[in-house]
Amino acid sequence: MKNAFLNLSLLESSIWSPISGGITCPDGFSAAGISAGLKSSGKKDLALLYVPDGSFCSGKFTQSEARAYCVDLCIDRLKASNGKVRAVVINSGQANACTGERGKIDSEIITSELAKRLGLSNEEVLICSTGVIGEPISVGKVTGHLDLLIQSLDKNANKDAANAILTTDLQVKEIAYRAVLGGRRVCIGGMAKGSGMIHPSMATMLSYITCDAGIDDQLWSKMIDRVAQSSFNSITVDGDTSTNDTFLAFSSGSKLDSRYLSTLEEGLHLTAQYLAKAIARDGEGANCLLEIKVEGAATNFDAHIIARTIASSSLVKTAVHGSDPNWGRIIAALGRAGSSFNLNDIQLWIGPYKIFSNGKPVDFDRKTVSNFMKERLKGAYLIDDLISIRLTIGMGNFSATAWGCDLSDQYVRINADYTT
Amino acid sequence: MKNAFLNLSLLESSIWSPISGGITCPDGFSAAGISAGLKSSGKKDLALLYVPDGSFCSGKFTQSEARAYCVDLCIDRLKASNGKVRAVVINSGQANACTGERGKIDSEIITSELAKRLGLSNEEVLICSTGVIGEPISVGKVTGHLDLLIQSLDKNANKDAANAILTTDLQVKEIAYRAVLGGRRVCIGGMAKGSGMIHPSMATMLSYITCDAGIDDQLWSKMIDRVAQSSFNSITVDGDTSTNDTFLAFSSGSKLDSRYLSTLEEGLHLTAQYLAKAIARDGEGANCLLEIKVEGAATNFDAHIIARTIASSSLVKTAVHGSDPNWGRIIAALGRAGSSFNLNDIQLWIGPYKIFSNGKPVDFDRKTVSNFMKERLKGAYLIDDLISIRLTIGMGNFSATAWGCDLSDQYVRINADYTT
Repeated sequence: MKNAFLNLSLLESSIWSPISGGITCPDGFSAAGISAGLKSSGKKDLALLYVPDGSFCSGKFTQSEARAYCVDLCIDRLKASNGKVRAVVINSGQANACTGERGKIDSEIITSELAKRLGLSNEEVLICSTGVIGEPISVGKVTGHLDLLIQSLDKNANKDAANAILTTDLQVKEIAYRAVLGGRRVCIGGMAKGSGMIHPSMATMLSYITCDAGIDDQLWSKMIDRVAQSSFNSITVDGDTSTNDTFLAFSSGSKLDSRYLSTLEEGLHLTAQYLAKAIARDGEGANCLLEIKVEGAATNFDAHIIARTIASSSLVKTAVHGSDPNWGRIIAALGRAGSSFNLNDIQLWIGPYKIFSNGKPVDFDRKTVSNFMKERLKGAYLIDDLISIRLTIGMGNFSATAWGCDLSDQYVRINADYTT
Repeated sequence: MKNAFLNLSLLESSIWSPISGGITCPDGFSAAGISAGLKSSGKKDLALLYVPDGSFCSGKFTQSEARAYCVDLCIDRLKASNGKVRAVVINSGQANACTGERGKIDSEIITSELAKRLGLSNEEVLICSTGVIGEPISVGKVTGHLDLLIQSLDKNANKDAANAILTTDLQVKEIAYRAVLGGRRVCIGGMAKGSGMIHPSMATMLSYITCDAGIDDQLWSKMIDRVAQSSFNSITVDGDTSTNDTFLAFSSGSKLDSRYLSTLEEGLHLTAQYLAKAIARDGEGANCLLEIKVEGAATNFDAHIIARTIASSSLVKTAVHGSDPNWGRIIAALGRAGSSFNLNDIQLWIGPYKIFSNGKPVDFDRKTVSNFMKERLKGAYLIDDLISIRLTIGMGNFSATAWGCDLSDQYVRINADYTT
């Protein structure tokens, strides 16, 4: 595998430089990742993110009505503490969703034991769980390992933490960026876990971003809303929404000069988009990252809904898997997205190749486009070696990008081959 | 294959009896189905439905913004003729969608030539096309075969017509019912084609219902709205909407005594649901019909959206394919359907087995439920040998049913294995 950092050509024009260090790169943050015996494989399964005093946390959560209790706990405590959270404990192996009253009690026991050991109030501690739905966490195993977890907290344990939150992900997902804003060095770090699924669990996305520039709490929350929209809300693996999806973003340290707010936001977008694309690329059975760029839509909503509808179409995804430049399926997905357009105004490209214009296909060479797609399906795990589909709608000035992946027989086998 | 009629246990309580005869069963209707050389396989590819004078036609069409011109033609002519349509010509092989201005001209030439030969005005003739998107119809082949098509019109050519509208369907889809309403014999007939797909075409659903009882035009249209909702709008194969979806329903003959209107509507629901289920069962790569029954929803909309969300979940569909009683994925799909509920009130059954209650799984035997599912996946083509998932929501009195199928590696192969 080539180094992902070297391939982020997208970012070269930015003042943000990718650096090593992940979630603990920003000043004052530390992390830990250990094995507490929650995964039968013996792999790391318990992570801790420890946050500097005075930090502010903004959170985005699954819209599912069947969410796990740990999601409610995060929402409640972010409110009760005014975002002044100091620690997040994350377990993988069991999602602790659909576990009845016990799910609530267990989440409270774990966070309360951790708060006690860290000298924090309960409101300052959050918990996220990911893994098998319907299975409770083995609370004894977690509390029995809290001392070790705390002892393991380290500025350089970013990869341990990023490993401990994975379920069936094939790749660790972490990134960090640095920029110098008005003479001040600012770092943004991130880690995520994606849509790995084994019976009877499901895609669960967890992601965390840290930053050592402080900004006004309300501004930070609004920024994080926009960042989530352009990243984690713009990816799809199979259209299913998890019970546990959580995105937490921490801003820490002295206030940043307000002249650099938009540059900071640019860095946050880069970080979140990298993690989001890494999740889509690592979708079950995926062989490539699929990028849908929509331009010229009438509204921001139209641009997003068109991009997401195409990215989540099973027919488009199977065509991509077969390296088939099947523009008919792309136009059909566009047609059902719910936005108005004039078919004669639509233009469509796959990679650099123009495919459709004036209400009908242009005279493109199928073999060339198919070979272009096939190259990108060969599947080194590189998020910039993607298949891009671009459409101009001709209705206005709004644009959006969504990311997904091909739909392979592997996906079906991964999700069907559970034998009771 | 056992006779599908013998297996419709659902219908035994009804006064409607299934009979042979399909679309031409009602008085006065005739049909034809021939090969005009549009399909390279040489199979039948051109159908004609000829309708008694004085009939009224109500139509429902794809919601796609990228619809084929033939859909616009049908909508315009139904309006211009006040529903007094006399003939429908249907070609398979080419969808004539995304073919630019030519698609319009070709549809008009074919219907105009047919109208001339049948002594009808253009407004009385409709055209439906299904097959490959982006490919125009070979107009010469169609007009060159119109005389033969008309000569082939026959009261007993229902199966020829039902065959000629298929694309990659594995099964012919036709049905007829009879009842005696106040001493009068009433017949309802139907045929459909479903979601067969070969490159670069897509799921295209066409369906036709005929009936030899006349009723008020407006009442008929409202009835057909409800019938479409409980049938063709309640199925999903892969969530993709076609450019050509069309459902035409003809009412013919002297007015039915208004006391029997609700019985007539019952027969129409049976007919349309049979065809809809047959389409879902014959989805690409499908091994069973999947039925989602939702009860106790707060509104009619909630009931439908929950049923359809679960039926279209890739995770639920792959779990069914693996005969995995994966309730976690069902609850997760319920959770993202957009309706409110209290998880503690949800009850869930797979077939006769209760799986989930009081916010958590009940103590069911996985092996037994899995074997139950496995039996139904063995896959004789029987639409009543289905896997049923039933949920009670505990929010109100509304219920809905949706139908789909399992998602198999076969589906991916069918839709990916196009090599340019």
